[in-house]
Amino acid sequence: MDNFVFYNPAKIIFGKDQEKTAGEWIRKYDGHKVLLHYGGGSIKKNGVYDTIIASLKANDLPFVELSGVVPNPRYSLIQEGIALCKREGVDFILAVGGGSVIDSAKGIAAGVLLNEDEDLWEDYYMFKRGPEKALPLGTVLTIPATGSESSRSSVVTNEATHFKRSMAADCMIPKFSIINPKTHYSLPPYQIACGCADILAHLMERYFTPTENVDFTDRMLEASMKTVINYAPLAIKYPTDYNIRAEIAWVGTIAHNGLLNTGRLGDWASHDLEHELGAIYDIYHGEGLAITFPAWMKYVYKQNPKRFVQFAQRVWDVEFSAEQEERIILEGIHRLERFFTELGLPIRCSQLHIDHSRFREMAQKIMVNRDHEGEFMKLYEEDCYQIYCLSE
Amino acid sequence: MDNFVFYNPAKIIFGKDQEKTAGEWIRKYDGHKVLLHYGGGSIKKNGVYDTIIASLKANDLPFVELSGVVPNPRYSLIQEGIALCKREGVDFILAVGGGSVIDSAKGIAAGVLLNEDEDLWEDYYMFKRGPEKALPLGTVLTIPATGSESSRSSVVTNEATHFKRSMAADCMIPKFSIINPKTHYSLPPYQIACGCADILAHLMERYFTPTENVDFTDRMLEASMKTVINYAPLAIKYPTDYNIRAEIAWVGTIAHNGLLNTGRLGDWASHDLEHELGAIYDIYHGEGLAITFPAWMKYVYKQNPKRFVQFAQRVWDVEFSAEQEERIILEGIHRLERFFTELGLPIRCSQLHIDHSRFREMAQKIMVNRDHEGEFMKLYEEDCYQIYCLSE
Repeated sequence: MDNFVFYNPAKIIFGKDQEKTAGEWIRKYDGHKVLLHYGGGSIKKNGVYDTIIASLKANDLPFVELSGVVPNPRYSLIQEGIALCKREGVDFILAVGGGSVIDSAKGIAAGVLLNEDEDLWEDYYMFKRGPEKALPLGTVLTIPATGSESSRSSVVTNEATHFKRSMAADCMIPKFSIINPKTHYSLPPYQIACGCADILAHLMERYFTPTENVDFTDRMLEASMKTVINYAPLAIKYPTDYNIRAEIAWVGTIAHNGLLNTGRLGDWASHDLEHELGAIYDIYHGEGLAITFPAWMKYVYKQNPKRFVQFAQRVWDVEFSAEQEERIILEGIHRLERFFTELGLPIRCSQLHIDHSRFREMAQKIMVNRDHEGEFMKLYEEDCYQIYCLSE
Repeated sequence: MDNFVFYNPAKIIFGKDQEKTAGEWIRKYDGHKVLLHYGGGSIKKNGVYDTIIASLKANDLPFVELSGVVPNPRYSLIQEGIALCKREGVDFILAVGGGSVIDSAKGIAAGVLLNEDEDLWEDYYMFKRGPEKALPLGTVLTIPATGSESSRSSVVTNEATHFKRSMAADCMIPKFSIINPKTHYSLPPYQIACGCADILAHLMERYFTPTENVDFTDRMLEASMKTVINYAPLAIKYPTDYNIRAEIAWVGTIAHNGLLNTGRLGDWASHDLEHELGAIYDIYHGEGLAITFPAWMKYVYKQNPKRFVQFAQRVWDVEFSAEQEERIILEGIHRLERFFTELGLPIRCSQLHIDHSRFREMAQKIMVNRDHEGEFMKLYEEDCYQIYCLSE
């Protein structure tokens, strides 16, 4: 086990009707003028928007709105938000939506407090660095997936350069996040599937570590993966069952709040491989992960077969006899692919009509500003290219 | 799953040599004058005391010392600490030791800031209430057991009245806790056994809930219990194996930081039954729990046999056929008793030469200021008495 510092001060307010308390929490965290940041019209259709507006008004909180966040949130909207906050004297940001909205809000929160000579994109996102300070941020999570509601990180696409990059810092951890699983009922099934793939990916990226002697966090990760695997199909089948949605929502937050990678190095290659796919083809993050993760697994498993055996046995209940190591491993990966397929997700690029023509370009872009990619097995441009080929 | 708020801002600094940074962290949390609070001589023998003193001096932090905390920490020492802090203008408390030292420090931290008309014991401990504010507190954990290093609570014995009571509040969560498993090497085996029993009890108390549909936290609890069950005997057998100690230390903190009871009601009857034993007979908390927990289980399992079946199957790998429900349950409890016995702990009062003469008195004291005891099954005086009889 490696040395670590674990710190996550996000206050999670979880359960039925909790979004009604948004204004009170902003007051408790000393907000006076709010930027209400959200995506398209879904929060207006499901009533969350009206509830939040009522809560802000009931707490005498003036606010300005910035909507229009899209999946793979755009850097240009962040720039717009920064200018708006400065002009309006905003001192608290409330993000209402999924990970894209929250990531966009984090970019704005950090950007508002930068010095004149700092450039948010070039100085921070491009180097995975986080700034020292940010405006306080609260969230109302309406899509369980990215874990951004309690994470340190923000992932954004610069549409001018087609780079999708992340930055992370403690100052961007939300002060509070409100999670009401009932507000997730109206999500389309495909979006639930994508969200569950993202949650499972966050867990697997922590699981496939080069660090040894991490049994406790292994078991916590296995517990979390089993929860996603059991409840994701049920969430699609029974969209208005509160307890099913609650399981998915809570595991989604814990998957990415820092706890499950304590003392161990993660491997984020599958996420970064997906980021390049998403930057060029603008696919959903979760569907991209269902494609890149199995391909990555097939390329790297020989690096540490025992870990892949444990994954197959403890997570997927593969019970072939112990001598058949490779069969156990491949069956584990097969069951992962079968799980994604049952959720209705693609597991190959071709299913999204993406061919190999830009694989080399994507492999090159991954290596920009990086010595290597991944930790379970260190990857370079050619490795990434080969993994994309396996995903074709 | 119930609605919940989860908030734990304790910063955990975990790993080799981390105690050297204590002074730096106090500085970061704006401490200027420190109360160094500890127990007996063990931290002087294992070198931790010297390391801390050097760190305080290197960071120009003046300090006063208060030692003498004993297991089942005494309210009288807390009163002494409060007076000392007020006299010396202390603005930060550093607790170096196990749960008793940290619980004592929390009492002092809260007591220093009370108003003149408030009484720490009568107004707070006796009613399980926590105060609004407390001095900032840091810890260096030298005994993994109570989870007090990141919990909201403090358990203290009032030697004048023989009451052992707890209070809890967010303001008593330590700002930081330093955990170096190497500093646990020198603990006597029996103390490790007691600590592991306490950790397992914290997990079981969350596990045996009356709340339904809590599968994710069930699985996380099972993962944590398996870790304790696997590593506790190894920690005794191989006292200087870092990775074994690290597993125990980290699960000990997570067991009690609030995460694993999110959305579910716990049942603290076994702990409270032990508190009365400890208040009268001054036994170790962990050995008391090894006695009260199996007795409690035998008394309550018919309340919800399915939960006890899951405990036996998932935690203890009991694989009898499904029809034999009672046999499965009793085997699970038996394996728990066998585990305690293997650690060298008593599982009956008679092993500590405690007879039934004061069972009635203890059962009466539990009900003072309480409507009922426990939540999995609501207990009253006669129930508590019967459980003590089962533990004889």
